[in-house]
Amino acid sequence: MPELRKDPILGRWIIIAKERSKRPTDFIIEDYPTKGGFCPLCPGNEKTTPDEVLVYGREPGMPPNSSSWQLRVVPNKYPALVIEGELDKQAEGLYDRMNGIGAHEVIIETPEHEEHFTYLPHEQMILTFRAYRDRIRDLARDDRFRYVMVFKNYGRAAGASLEHSHSQLIALPVLPRMVSSELDGSLSYYRYKDRCIFCDIIRQEIQQDIRLVCGNELFVTVTPFAPRTPFEMWILPRQHSSSYIEQDDRTMAALTDIFSESLRRLDACIPNVPYNFVLHTQPLRSQPLEHYHWHFEIVPKLTSIAGFEWGSGFYINPMPPEDACRYLREAL
Amino acid sequence: MPELRKDPILGRWIIIAKERSKRPTDFIIEDYPTKGGFCPLCPGNEKTTPDEVLVYGREPGMPPNSSSWQLRVVPNKYPALVIEGELDKQAEGLYDRMNGIGAHEVIIETPEHEEHFTYLPHEQMILTFRAYRDRIRDLARDDRFRYVMVFKNYGRAAGASLEHSHSQLIALPVLPRMVSSELDGSLSYYRYKDRCIFCDIIRQEIQQDIRLVCGNELFVTVTPFAPRTPFEMWILPRQHSSSYIEQDDRTMAALTDIFSESLRRLDACIPNVPYNFVLHTQPLRSQPLEHYHWHFEIVPKLTSIAGFEWGSGFYINPMPPEDACRYLREAL
Repeated sequence: MPELRKDPILGRWIIIAKERSKRPTDFIIEDYPTKGGFCPLCPGNEKTTPDEVLVYGREPGMPPNSSSWQLRVVPNKYPALVIEGELDKQAEGLYDRMNGIGAHEVIIETPEHEEHFTYLPHEQMILTFRAYRDRIRDLARDDRFRYVMVFKNYGRAAGASLEHSHSQLIALPVLPRMVSSELDGSLSYYRYKDRCIFCDIIRQEIQQDIRLVCGNELFVTVTPFAPRTPFEMWILPRQHSSSYIEQDDRTMAALTDIFSESLRRLDACIPNVPYNFVLHTQPLRSQPLEHYHWHFEIVPKLTSIAGFEWGSGFYINPMPPEDACRYLREAL
Repeated sequence: MPELRKDPILGRWIIIAKERSKRPTDFIIEDYPTKGGFCPLCPGNEKTTPDEVLVYGREPGMPPNSSSWQLRVVPNKYPALVIEGELDKQAEGLYDRMNGIGAHEVIIETPEHEEHFTYLPHEQMILTFRAYRDRIRDLARDDRFRYVMVFKNYGRAAGASLEHSHSQLIALPVLPRMVSSELDGSLSYYRYKDRCIFCDIIRQEIQQDIRLVCGNELFVTVTPFAPRTPFEMWILPRQHSSSYIEQDDRTMAALTDIFSESLRRLDACIPNVPYNFVLHTQPLRSQPLEHYHWHFEIVPKLTSIAGFEWGSGFYINPMPPEDACRYLREAL
């Protein structure tokens, strides 16, 4: 079973996922191994994945895991954390460990192997955002879990090991450090100002209009003031809300529109750039938070993490977000 | 001039180093461009680097920047931060920025282009560790700087853009988040236990003897309990001290021995693996700290940072440090 370990100085958690490497020199973390031209995510190969936990668009009367569907969610065949078992926390002298209980799922965003997420038709792309919502809602009922991290790795350089368009989620028994830092930071601003810092950011970005990439009735996309990489983008709902899973279908439709537009602009600037995106939302079963604001962060893979970044937590970014914004605006 | 920007939510600093990218699609951060077979770090090419700020082993009577030397330190030709100017802090609405004052230097560890740091003779390698000490001591006199980050990127995948053996340092006008987290974490342990957490870790590792890779009279090398990557190693002085720059030549010699042995063991496990190492030491001009303990962290480049790591601050590591330690012990 995988194991969670905490660095005793920084409080940073590590997942020791021994099962994912069979040999001492085999370190590539694969979602699924790709053998020759075989794709386990393609229709017809449903039996090569674990049983689906969610499906959209299956024809009536067809059995589970049969090959007619528009979107499927399946457990990861090589999970970083496993779903079975009770949480067991132990000390080892001054160290803390926990068994690796969690869920690790793959969202198969389209049946078409060749389709790019960026260019999915609206009616197909919206299913992905609905699937995130529906899966988090479902996993929230399991009180062993405190957070569901939803993310997409696009391109091999950004960590994707399969071509077929997919994203992932990992349900965690602890609150990740990055999430608690964000909650703490926004709470301390709220205590001082009595306002949500994200709402203030949106107001300032609309007023300044130098990092505002695009917008629609419900959302804005900005290049953040202190981006980690060139062309980093944040997609924020205009209206305050801390919880992604409370969003209705109208919001999902507007999110799909702005996501699609933002990714198309990025693709026009740097064709086929590898990227990661991550959903930021409140912890599971939390009350609505006045100080927190759900959003997506898109981080293109254009710079590398080296000694300086490891040691400092600083990032060196050669492109000011105002320049990136100008390129993105002019791209379409 | 480069600019420092702070993320208003996380307090994370970013260096916007526009000068390092000339064109919108040129994002590779180069220490120095390598053109054909030309190496700016090789003897004979001293005039292609900025003037040296430290040199060891120059023959008596030879002028600065001439071609007889054993180790040179020169300013980075494409610095992330620049040395000239006064610190200037400004607000932009709710955001904070600062002009990019700092120092960015390259430590050229040997005149021999083909030599690997790992296999440098003792008398050559020790110069690198002395140079770190001497440069930090010198930069500490500049009270615009609060920290000097010393690091090495080995191999292209770990961020090195030049083959010739070198490391780097960046003097910073702010305390990096990673450093202050480490200081905070060790201080809160100290307040609770009245002991240095690193001293406790060393005691526990020696007693458990399952993550202890090697040791000598003054140092131990361990695979840490919660490593970010396979074969991560920490080199720690047995005796408590928070400051690298207070170390004498006997300590430098013992450090050279254990560093060399640790890197050779790593190289025997995974030949020519790319890696980063970082010196962790107290902030400039700090009094000696009871709760902090200087050390080096070596992080091999064997896994990738993808969406999950960006979003969570968690790392997924397929190799338990006890296994890595066993491989490293048996390697030589």
